[in-house]
Amino acid sequence: MTTTVRGAADRVLGYPDPQGAAELRSSVADYLRRVRAVDVEPERVVICAGFTQALSLLVGVLDHPVVALEDPGLIGRDRVVAAAGGSPVPIGVDRCGIHLDRLADLDPSAVVVTPTHQFPLGVALASDGRAGLLDWARDGRLIIEDDYDAEFRYDRSPVGALQGLAPERVAYVGTTSKTLAPALRLGWIVAPIPLVARLTELRRHSDAGGPTLDQLALADLIDSGAYERHLRRARRRYRERRDRLITALQRHLPDAQVDGMAAGLHLVVRLAGSQDSARIVPAAESRGLAIASLERYRFGRHRLGNPEPDAAAELVLGYGNIGADAITDAVRELAEVIADGPAHLPARVSGLRPTPRPGPPGGR
Amino acid sequence: MTTTVRGAADRVLGYPDPQGAAELRSSVADYLRRVRAVDVEPERVVICAGFTQALSLLVGVLDHPVVALEDPGLIGRDRVVAAAGGSPVPIGVDRCGIHLDRLADLDPSAVVVTPTHQFPLGVALASDGRAGLLDWARDGRLIIEDDYDAEFRYDRSPVGALQGLAPERVAYVGTTSKTLAPALRLGWIVAPIPLVARLTELRRHSDAGGPTLDQLALADLIDSGAYERHLRRARRRYRERRDRLITALQRHLPDAQVDGMAAGLHLVVRLAGSQDSARIVPAAESRGLAIASLERYRFGRHRLGNPEPDAAAELVLGYGNIGADAITDAVRELAEVIADGPAHLPARVSGLRPTPRPGPPGGR
Repeated sequence: MTTTVRGAADRVLGYPDPQGAAELRSSVADYLRRVRAVDVEPERVVICAGFTQALSLLVGVLDHPVVALEDPGLIGRDRVVAAAGGSPVPIGVDRCGIHLDRLADLDPSAVVVTPTHQFPLGVALASDGRAGLLDWARDGRLIIEDDYDAEFRYDRSPVGALQGLAPERVAYVGTTSKTLAPALRLGWIVAPIPLVARLTELRRHSDAGGPTLDQLALADLIDSGAYERHLRRARRRYRERRDRLITALQRHLPDAQVDGMAAGLHLVVRLAGSQDSARIVPAAESRGLAIASLERYRFGRHRLGNPEPDAAAELVLGYGNIGADAITDAVRELAEVIADGPAHLPARVSGLRPTPRPGPPGGR
Repeated sequence: MTTTVRGAADRVLGYPDPQGAAELRSSVADYLRRVRAVDVEPERVVICAGFTQALSLLVGVLDHPVVALEDPGLIGRDRVVAAAGGSPVPIGVDRCGIHLDRLADLDPSAVVVTPTHQFPLGVALASDGRAGLLDWARDGRLIIEDDYDAEFRYDRSPVGALQGLAPERVAYVGTTSKTLAPALRLGWIVAPIPLVARLTELRRHSDAGGPTLDQLALADLIDSGAYERHLRRARRRYRERRDRLITALQRHLPDAQVDGMAAGLHLVVRLAGSQDSARIVPAAESRGLAIASLERYRFGRHRLGNPEPDAAAELVLGYGNIGADAITDAVRELAEVIADGPAHLPARVSGLRPTPRPGPPGGR
């Protein structure tokens, strides 16, 4: 950053380019082309302040935006859509993917998906699901691809971005909120060409663009290779946490089914027998153990006040915010809570709550 | 900044407080209370990315926003109001102040004013104008006070902010775009209490808040006294430029009337006789001399394509972006252009154009 600022011409202290600093758009394009198979030139990139602003801007440039959101999915996106003048609608998603027939019935103008590692289910969208989604988006509909967790895939090479298959039907969105820190407020949209100028104008009239020095510092970090070195280190660290978490779950909750562990910073635990997450989550909380039920992320539940519970208790455990050494103890405590054991230990572990994606790494 | 970042707890790397970092809200409140007589506690402060985002957020939290904008005034604010879902309407302003009777007729929900140093006229709102404006804003109407140029007042103490007289009727807006650099994208709203939570929620759902480290660095700068030392140095430098500009105008354009020089980074020159700014501005431009006509800032002119010219040629000269040594030559060249003299000199001076407020210092 020091180099960047010292080497910067006076122009970088003036009003920013609302599309984003040319240097950063170029760095991001190189990175995404190489690492995520995104079909991108710097002209397609619009820098933004993370996923929230990306979604807000995208909704703002659609005509009569009805925007489908994955259900279950990340909390609060309906309010982002509404604040930008759009109408959010839920679209069901399960371990087999998004409900394409329902999507055809709803006929929204756009759909927001997390194809790499669905939040919270943790599954990747299979190839026929990807094909079906791209097919749906013919005739001017837009897929908003939240490339959530793409950087943290542990067991095999990540699948390329959906955008690379249909760059005029997909707006690809990435963020540094999980790879660096949510406090940075830096992300990017790779947009269909016809939307780029409209996104840029909307950003110009919303906040006049993002801080230039922050953008140049990130461009430096990417160009120097330090960003990818950091990601490799972080991936190793998170893989170690994940492995410990899986081992501990196998030991302390041997009958539970664990899902969504191929990538990301969370996984899903389906408990055997008749368990009730409405009892487990607060009981765990009272012992200082922050976890979440899958129910929490259902549209109907948190948005419409519909309290209908699942038959099985499904828990979402995050490991973005807990040290590897604390994981085994945390899972043992969780198993005690589930077995309704006595609260004989003082609260001393925490951090398994997956959302609002705690930072760092978080991600919005 | 180094100290701030090193001393920062992990929490500052997570999602920001969308209202703004507590440290910066506190620093800004102290500064504004002391220097601008703003009636403010940190709870009233909402940090934003400069005036554009402040206006966008304020429009966004009004019901059925019809927003009056000074005419003549800064270019592009009508588009900010429209992008946020509001309806912009022009309200005339002259050297005696804003047209209060017209404001009563229009009955907008809010009005944006630059009471300290009207842009582009350069006049301060007189005390009866201030009283009339505050009176208009009874019954739930909002004054948006753009405290434009407050930091750069040369000949006497600045008048206090309008907000200090009626904190529940005025949303005070300040920015670092002109005091530090537009590239920083840091400003603040001091809002009526009932609007604070709505502004915060709207920012949460627009971009999830601003970058935390930038905010902490600015808080450090203010708390250490370095910000005010910088302002004193800048004020001296700008006063020197202004004095040279006035001296040069008296020498080379002795019949012109000069106005709006008590503060800010621009002044207005009214030429004697029948002059035509439509000839003068491009002729000056062709000699590398960037100036603007007052006409340029009239709502009807640039927004409605109404080409009706003024009787007299009024020029707006900015001195934010030109070195003191270049000013005398620039004015001599301008006088030659006005006298329709031959273009015998190579273009070698520039920077008297006042807007789009070139940076630094600029200001949006």
